[in-house]
Amino acid sequence: MAVNIKQALLGRRLDTEALADQAISKPVGLAVFASDALSSTAYATEEILVILAAAVGGGAATMWTTGGTILGLSAPIALAIAVLLVIVTISYRQTIYAYPNGGGAYIVARDNLGEIPALIAGAALLTDYILTVAVSISSGVAQIISAFPALLPYKVEIAVGVILLITVVNLRGVKEAGRLFAIPTYFFLGMMFLTLGVGLIRALTGNLPTVTEVEAIHHAVVEPLTIFLVLRAFSSGCTALTGVEAISNGITAFKEPRSRNAATTLVVMTSILIPLFLGITFMANQIHAVPSHVETVISQIGRTVYGGGNPLYYLVLAATALILLMAANTSYAGFPRLAALQAADGYLPRQLTHRGGRLVFSWGIVALASLASLLVILMNASVTALIPLYAIGVFLSFTISQTGMAVHLRKVGKLKPGEVHQGLEASINHDKRWRLKLVISIVGAISTFVVMIVFAVTKFTSGAWFVVLLIPAMVAIFLRINRHYQEVAHALSLQGVPVDTEIRPVQTLILVDDVHAETVRLVNFAKSLNHPWRAVHIAANPDKVETVKAKWKSRIGEGELVIIPSPFRQLAEPLHNYIEQVRTEQPDGFIHVIMGHLVMDTYWEQGLHHNSAYLLNLALTGMDRVVVTMVPYQIHHEQDDDGKKILVTQDEKRAQEAAKAAAEAEAQDS
Amino acid sequence: MAVNIKQALLGRRLDTEALADQAISKPVGLAVFASDALSSTAYATEEILVILAAAVGGGAATMWTTGGTILGLSAPIALAIAVLLVIVTISYRQTIYAYPNGGGAYIVARDNLGEIPALIAGAALLTDYILTVAVSISSGVAQIISAFPALLPYKVEIAVGVILLITVVNLRGVKEAGRLFAIPTYFFLGMMFLTLGVGLIRALTGNLPTVTEVEAIHHAVVEPLTIFLVLRAFSSGCTALTGVEAISNGITAFKEPRSRNAATTLVVMTSILIPLFLGITFMANQIHAVPSHVETVISQIGRTVYGGGNPLYYLVLAATALILLMAANTSYAGFPRLAALQAADGYLPRQLTHRGGRLVFSWGIVALASLASLLVILMNASVTALIPLYAIGVFLSFTISQTGMAVHLRKVGKLKPGEVHQGLEASINHDKRWRLKLVISIVGAISTFVVMIVFAVTKFTSGAWFVVLLIPAMVAIFLRINRHYQEVAHALSLQGVPVDTEIRPVQTLILVDDVHAETVRLVNFAKSLNHPWRAVHIAANPDKVETVKAKWKSRIGEGELVIIPSPFRQLAEPLHNYIEQVRTEQPDGFIHVIMGHLVMDTYWEQGLHHNSAYLLNLALTGMDRVVVTMVPYQIHHEQDDDGKKILVTQDEKRAQEAAKAAAEAEAQDS
Repeated sequence: MAVNIKQALLGRRLDTEALADQAISKPVGLAVFASDALSSTAYATEEILVILAAAVGGGAATMWTTGGTILGLSAPIALAIAVLLVIVTISYRQTIYAYPNGGGAYIVARDNLGEIPALIAGAALLTDYILTVAVSISSGVAQIISAFPALLPYKVEIAVGVILLITVVNLRGVKEAGRLFAIPTYFFLGMMFLTLGVGLIRALTGNLPTVTEVEAIHHAVVEPLTIFLVLRAFSSGCTALTGVEAISNGITAFKEPRSRNAATTLVVMTSILIPLFLGITFMANQIHAVPSHVETVISQIGRTVYGGGNPLYYLVLAATALILLMAANTSYAGFPRLAALQAADGYLPRQLTHRGGRLVFSWGIVALASLASLLVILMNASVTALIPLYAIGVFLSFTISQTGMAVHLRKVGKLKPGEVHQGLEASINHDKRWRLKLVISIVGAISTFVVMIVFAVTKFTSGAWFVVLLIPAMVAIFLRINRHYQEVAHALSLQGVPVDTEIRPVQTLILVDDVHAETVRLVNFAKSLNHPWRAVHIAANPDKVETVKAKWKSRIGEGELVIIPSPFRQLAEPLHNYIEQVRTEQPDGFIHVIMGHLVMDTYWEQGLHHNSAYLLNLALTGMDRVVVTMVPYQIHHEQDDDGKKILVTQDEKRAQEAAKAAAEAEAQDS
Repeated sequence: MAVNIKQALLGRRLDTEALADQAISKPVGLAVFASDALSSTAYATEEILVILAAAVGGGAATMWTTGGTILGLSAPIALAIAVLLVIVTISYRQTIYAYPNGGGAYIVARDNLGEIPALIAGAALLTDYILTVAVSISSGVAQIISAFPALLPYKVEIAVGVILLITVVNLRGVKEAGRLFAIPTYFFLGMMFLTLGVGLIRALTGNLPTVTEVEAIHHAVVEPLTIFLVLRAFSSGCTALTGVEAISNGITAFKEPRSRNAATTLVVMTSILIPLFLGITFMANQIHAVPSHVETVISQIGRTVYGGGNPLYYLVLAATALILLMAANTSYAGFPRLAALQAADGYLPRQLTHRGGRLVFSWGIVALASLASLLVILMNASVTALIPLYAIGVFLSFTISQTGMAVHLRKVGKLKPGEVHQGLEASINHDKRWRLKLVISIVGAISTFVVMIVFAVTKFTSGAWFVVLLIPAMVAIFLRINRHYQEVAHALSLQGVPVDTEIRPVQTLILVDDVHAETVRLVNFAKSLNHPWRAVHIAANPDKVETVKAKWKSRIGEGELVIIPSPFRQLAEPLHNYIEQVRTEQPDGFIHVIMGHLVMDTYWEQGLHHNSAYLLNLALTGMDRVVVTMVPYQIHHEQDDDGKKILVTQDEKRAQEAAKAAAEAEAQDS
């Protein structure tokens, strides 16, 4: 039944060879990998306005009349960000061709810059995957609340609920997730361009009002308009660039020719992203949108363009909420893949490389969902509170990735046509424009590095300090994990130590709690092993000892039953001490402890039994050459001759079946 | 280190024979078992006023001027409750003498009324232990909030935190808990009688003002003053009786002579409880206290008697909060004891009978704390919301207990002096007043039964319905659990089925993931067992198969290595299928699966390994005559010759130690 529920929830499991069929087309790839980047337009403009408003102060009604020039700075800031986006896109397009098997910052850095830069990139990317989920979900919930302000008190609960939902969808596997998520992405694009179009027409015809009845955020202290403040606003807006790298991380998910399909998708994405971001910023300026804790800028645009009660207004918000909630999916594709990559290199626990029944990295998905939920709860699902943690990692990985590409291009560029150096030849179509490409990568690396420094400095006190500390801490952990695996591998390598092939004596101890059918099975197994054995009873309950002794004598009637005192009513410690005593009798042999374990048909019945064998087993793992055997003894539900439900042991069931078979055989004979 | 932390937190563990020394004196017994009953005076008066206020309506300022007569009904209601208390006390005093080994309602009912009444009493008591914790803690936190209203938003968090604290204290064992809790009980009594005394003097000298500046609860709709409403107020006030039965449940905790010490403690408790409850109700009337969500009646009394800023006012609240928080301790003594009793009779999971290292029933304590915390969270730590769930179970158990005592007294009373019938003679000092005692028990049973019906009817819609449904549901669960244990005992009883003593063939399968030092150990053990063996590798990762085969050949070089395909990358299922296939070769033998398990020195290192042996072990428990051996292989931290930390296997460590011993022996020889 458990299997059925799992299958209903997560879909049928897939064969390893079915992996190739999971590849996705360009339109689906755009939906899967671009939803993060596209959806960031839903909050980037708003976060620019939040910072600029600090230099205006006051309430909604007067914000634009007194501070129009200041808030209007959002337009040139957005333009600067668009230029940055073009640079990054061109640079990443080169990466996609150079690394057709997936060129995330981690891989590019590992191949070109060495271990530490790769681990820094890995740490930055993992952090940002988690933050993408937290920010996207929080912003999505903010859109829902703009439409239904009554839900405000439940925003954290809604956000965590949505994370849970996306987690289940993703455990089903990437293809289904892609298909499911294609609809919201295109729905969002359709609604947004419709809204911007209608707004533009109304603005050109002088027919577009400004927004009314918004409860703006209120800055009690008005800050002076400094370069620092403008840079802070620029940093916030740079969140529009988050997610651009997703396609280059996920090239392997595309259909062949992978690189070309992925590169095309990247260019299409940026071509959509720039007009969308600039359009939203332009429209926000037109309608005099104000930053608010209750209503998002997208909602203000929709409400002003269509009017508050218009169904199209609700469709805009629904589309925005959907793409944001789905944008988290980018991370669900990327995080487990990167974690598995790092785990395979021995920098994260090996369990992360384990592929689940649905060809996804189940452990990674669960880890991502847990950490993102934690962040949402801690930050109360506030986008503005999460932003300072966010883009620093993105720009750090941009910088590392493009620096790595510069090194790569230089090495490849210096090769003569046809020459192979460290397997590099195949990885790039050698052409004479390599110097131009190198320049692009260097420009990209420098500009993203500058943005990262700006971000770290301007956002340091409001949260970036945490990421600045977190990333080196993560790198240290990666290195420590790696050292452990290397040490274990070395210890287990069978080098230097003679292989122990000696046949050793085996002393069997049967652990006896009470004497009944299960005990008979234990003795039966011990005798079948044909090594010296004795039974051991730990007297945790002194009142029971005499009964156990008597039962042993009458029902087993052979072998030695040792009673171990246990004044502190414990099981593990007296057993441990007794084994050490047996060890002195036989220092080089194996001590073989046999324990029984009653197995019931249902979980609730299993829960009514002590199940102590597991704990005892765990308690003895530290002892050398002490091995523990668990002998399960099943008790089944059966119907007796009157149709009444009863419990029977495995032995009885066998006896019944044998009797039945014999009776049938006899019936056939006659 | 884990052991050290446990000891620091929970104290040294105790020998079974130290159990007798844990007995407590009368003053400590009063503190431990009476804190529940005494502390209920902190809310009983208030809860009467809450109900009566519904017939007054309006706010604090006018409540007494318009509804003085109605609120004044609290005095006669309190008097009626005091009479009921006297009846119950006399009746329970008889129980204490009749059941010197602890005469909770469960035992009295089991001995005199049969299984079902006993289980009803058990269910009622368990429910009420949980509610005692929830109500006492919630009321205690309400007192704290009266003094510090700023804490209001955190009341649920504070309440849950306090439950956690008391849980830790109680896991240390009953004697320490008793000593620790004696101080607050006597502190509370001292402060309350001082306050009532000062208040009385001020009232007699015409010097006691009425309370001011209270935000009273506001009833929008004024209810008519019906008999039903008065009975509802009476029901609420009956919560003053909760906890009276605690002493009779815990007689065994007292020093010898147990019965006399316990009975004296009970009488002393009631002698304190009645003047306290009546005094508080009288004083509430004098100062015109009003029910409020923000300030408790105790706080209003203290504030009016001493003045708001007076240190004595804060001491009153501190004392009340402390005794209430500590009152939960009654349940921590009673709940695990009763649960263990019912578990020993087979009506609850057997784990509940397990005595922890500190002679308390750790599992029961943990269960109690979890359920009480859940209730506090669900009911938002509101006493008024919890009350309708509360007293119904108390009065149900009172009724059952006293009915049982009536049956008991009738049986014993009919015996001639010295005559023994079903072991009853020793259990009661036979005297000629048994008819009087019988009448007392019958009067007690009838009056508590009437109160229970009144409670169930008047509180039905506000929450009592839940308990009315819960108690039969619990009884059904008890019966089902009991049936399971009986069925298992019957199945295991070795009756009717021939004892299987046959020596059977054993086929050994070694589960191989990779080939290294641990694998050598597995093969070493399998060979030492001297039964036919073969190695099995599950090809969850097809890329690895050839390497494993090659390593097997070069490093082990003997035996058969079977490769089991696993297209779905699973381990358990292919292994399961393979074992079923082996089973057909040898239908009656044992199949012995040997698995390795790497054991690290620290938890974090252990967490970096798959630890899949446990899961695989679990996955095979359902298979008959398939036994699983886990062979641990330890990897230790060591220092190499340069003092650098390295990891070495158990084999290397042994080899090193042997070499060292040899070198030392040689040095000694020369």
